[in-house]
Amino acid sequence: MSSHVRTVRPNQMVALMERAAHIKKMLEQGEKKPYKDVIDVCWGDPHGAGMKPLTFVRQVLAACIYPQLLDGGNLPMDVKRRAQKLLRWCDGGSVGSYTNTGGILEIVENLAQFISQRDGVPAHPENIWIHPGSQTSLTSILTLLLSSEATPKRGVLVPVPGHSTVPLSVAALGGVAAPYFLDEERGWELRADELRRALASARGVCRPVALYVINPGNPTGHVQSRKSMEEVIRFVAENNLFLLADEVYQGSVYDANSEFVSYKKRLYELGPPLAHTLELASFHSASKGLLGECGLRGGYVELLNMDPVVMPYVERLFHLIPSPPVTGQIALELMVEPPQPGDPSYPLYMHETEHTRRTLVDNVKRVLQVLNRLPAISCQPVRGGAFAFPRLHLTTKAIRKAKDAGMQPDMFYCTKLLEDTGVFVSPGCEYGQKEGTYHIRFCIMTPTDTMEELLRRLSAFHLKFMKDLS
Amino acid sequence: MSSHVRTVRPNQMVALMERAAHIKKMLEQGEKKPYKDVIDVCWGDPHGAGMKPLTFVRQVLAACIYPQLLDGGNLPMDVKRRAQKLLRWCDGGSVGSYTNTGGILEIVENLAQFISQRDGVPAHPENIWIHPGSQTSLTSILTLLLSSEATPKRGVLVPVPGHSTVPLSVAALGGVAAPYFLDEERGWELRADELRRALASARGVCRPVALYVINPGNPTGHVQSRKSMEEVIRFVAENNLFLLADEVYQGSVYDANSEFVSYKKRLYELGPPLAHTLELASFHSASKGLLGECGLRGGYVELLNMDPVVMPYVERLFHLIPSPPVTGQIALELMVEPPQPGDPSYPLYMHETEHTRRTLVDNVKRVLQVLNRLPAISCQPVRGGAFAFPRLHLTTKAIRKAKDAGMQPDMFYCTKLLEDTGVFVSPGCEYGQKEGTYHIRFCIMTPTDTMEELLRRLSAFHLKFMKDLS
Ligand SMILES: Cc1ncc(COP(=O)(O)O)c(C=O)c1O
Ligand SMILES: Cc1ncc(COP(=O)(O)O)c(C=O)c1O
Repeated sequence: MSSHVRTVRPNQMVALMERAAHIKKMLEQGEKKPYKDVIDVCWGDPHGAGMKPLTFVRQVLAACIYPQLLDGGNLPMDVKRRAQKLLRWCDGGSVGSYTNTGGILEIVENLAQFISQRDGVPAHPENIWIHPGSQTSLTSILTLLLSSEATPKRGVLVPVPGHSTVPLSVAALGGVAAPYFLDEERGWELRADELRRALASARGVCRPVALYVINPGNPTGHVQSRKSMEEVIRFVAENNLFLLADEVYQGSVYDANSEFVSYKKRLYELGPPLAHTLELASFHSASKGLLGECGLRGGYVELLNMDPVVMPYVERLFHLIPSPPVTGQIALELMVEPPQPGDPSYPLYMHETEHTRRTLVDNVKRVLQVLNRLPAISCQPVRGGAFAFPRLHLTTKAIRKAKDAGMQPDMFYCTKLLEDTGVFVSPGCEYGQKEGTYHIRFCIMTPTDTMEELLRRLSAFHLKFMKDLS
Repeated sequence: MSSHVRTVRPNQMVALMERAAHIKKMLEQGEKKPYKDVIDVCWGDPHGAGMKPLTFVRQVLAACIYPQLLDGGNLPMDVKRRAQKLLRWCDGGSVGSYTNTGGILEIVENLAQFISQRDGVPAHPENIWIHPGSQTSLTSILTLLLSSEATPKRGVLVPVPGHSTVPLSVAALGGVAAPYFLDEERGWELRADELRRALASARGVCRPVALYVINPGNPTGHVQSRKSMEEVIRFVAENNLFLLADEVYQGSVYDANSEFVSYKKRLYELGPPLAHTLELASFHSASKGLLGECGLRGGYVELLNMDPVVMPYVERLFHLIPSPPVTGQIALELMVEPPQPGDPSYPLYMHETEHTRRTLVDNVKRVLQVLNRLPAISCQPVRGGAFAFPRLHLTTKAIRKAKDAGMQPDMFYCTKLLEDTGVFVSPGCEYGQKEGTYHIRFCIMTPTDTMEELLRRLSAFHLKFMKDLS
């Protein structure tokens, strides 16, 4: 067995997930609890949390899967036209065919056009690869960057708190995930001085080769400013790092004063030589934003300024990844080519997307209102992303109680919250956090009613928990 | 960059694929050629080669994707019931939700039941993981078995000729793919003495840890006998190897005197101690057989007799693989739980599957008839799988011509065949072959007309090629 596999740490979440699944099952079987259902807001999974898929997306997909639907009169004309076009791009006119390993060419071309329009900077299909979700894109780029047998080990600077996939994959690939801490007091800002500290400290144990940033942030909800992005870019360039920009939440900005700017766009604003030299991989996905199609598995990576010597190896490596699921590829296509004014599907599409946008903005407002009025819990502004990440100010007694139970304090809180109220959130220890601080993370992409019920249960539990363990 | 990535060989096929795509495009744009279309039988991709998806499978999938279809009167009752059941298994009732990393629990349980019934031996859901295609299952098991920094390097014995994914992945993971040759003259039999020779020879360059077998064979079309399987099992046990049994073509046996027997079943027939000790991974997929749903990406691995010390690492590693696409998981479920007598969908399902079965049996018969009557080409019986793999008896002149063009002789043949006739097949050099022998591989899962047209074009080309270069 590979020694790196041995270093993959046990997933602490598994026990909590199994507990949640068990409670759901018991409730379904009619067992009585003080609550009627589990509110599952543990993941960034909008449909799982009760959001509805977009009708246009599902109609096109259904017609591609079962083209007999094109004959009937039940689907709008633009849906039919779109499905017919997509089927022409599939070998044998079937979504059941393998595609190019990097995705259907026409869809890759449309992704390039979407990126060009977003950034006002050309994007080239040769630099874009579709994978079964952006997580696979991330892992495969890490495979390229890391070399298990290198001495000293290769390192990747990762945000703390941050989405846990990258640190876990880095470890599994024999590299070192070196933490840089985000500044909670300043709304989880990424600070350049902290990057410098983290790099210096990482150099003691590894040779850092890349910086991983998540913008908008998971779990933090922070959206980076242009100034902060410039600092990151200059830091990356000065230290000869590779920039991994996880931009899967680019469609999810809730704060009127915040704006998503891609790293590629920011880089071009700064102009040459940076714009033509900084090695960048940017990731996006159909799992997030308005589509929320996590289960279809469609994500992509765009590479920029890759060493031309390395590009052929990238291509060879990517040829080893099986072709991505066609339904996930179609979801990406529909994400970047939504219905246009005048199309029969346009009014419903606008209605649904506006409704979702308003719901999320309202949810975020309510979360902050409710939580920041409670004692011993505080939440930074949620400007984007899919999560709130409030801090728990736990008592010494609560912390001791958790230790007695053999758990991290916030894992203890989450476990009790789940057992007592059916609210399923994840603990800050899953994402890393400054020592002695504790958090919970929950998805804010839920229907209004679900969010109100969640806040009601959470508030009542929190007050009781704090009182019992004061 | 990881040094293993550097060893990944350039995919020779890419140039040929690009050429085929270019010719298709030119034909679509109305360019005149001596043929009206490209017959693409290069991959094991039934829909790409013109086979039709099963109506039942596509109806259930469409209803899961767009549940409004459940309200209308257009879908059979059993399709609706099945879709409703499947949606209950999805978080939030949507195929857009993430699932367990190893797949939806209920589907995994049904896979276990399918395996139990197939083998008459219990199968346990804890040992089964769904992935985005069996290729991902294969690669992740290889990740477990191989250790890039081990000295001597770890090795996997692989069949020659054989499906190229495994040798490529082994190399990318820093291991050694050590060839054992299948015996063409005996219908591509796997011979125990050759396994022993291959192992001894491999020990000169690596420490072999696993044996990879493909049954029914790709590209060979061979179906192993019980006797041959017993020899393999004893060889694996004696030499403390791990057995990787690629059984994705288990639903594809055409020869009335051949039968698919799983390695697990054969192992249990041999009884303890073998049955309780031999470490086995068996792979299956929705891409092949009667479904042929390659594009949906659903495959699984079942593990048997894994060292209990290793199992937790397997679980941790598999938790790093993102959850498989829900549509692919549904395809697997429908593969193992087809309509039953009495269900409204049963008659059409039987009609379609019987038609496919008959078509494939006829295709195989015609391929052998036609090819084995031609000079300088000979094809072993195709008892199962998705391919014919005839041998080309090339002239010295043809071989020299190929060398002048900087190509392997059979790649030269395939390139000319594509250019001159639009028939897109792959060369034997992609799969490995005994030195000085040359082959082509093509998919036999096509409609009858396509196969007749293919054989017509191939025969005419072959005769001319041999004459011109005699
Ligand atoms: C920051 C971040 N990146 C990547 C992913 C993976 O998304 P995908 O579904 O495209 O693999 C997630 C999923 O939650 C995420 O939060
Ligand atoms: C022998 C063999 N194993 C595995 C696979 C991969 O199948 P999947 O589509 O399930 O990844 C193939 C595909 O052609 C194959 O021929």
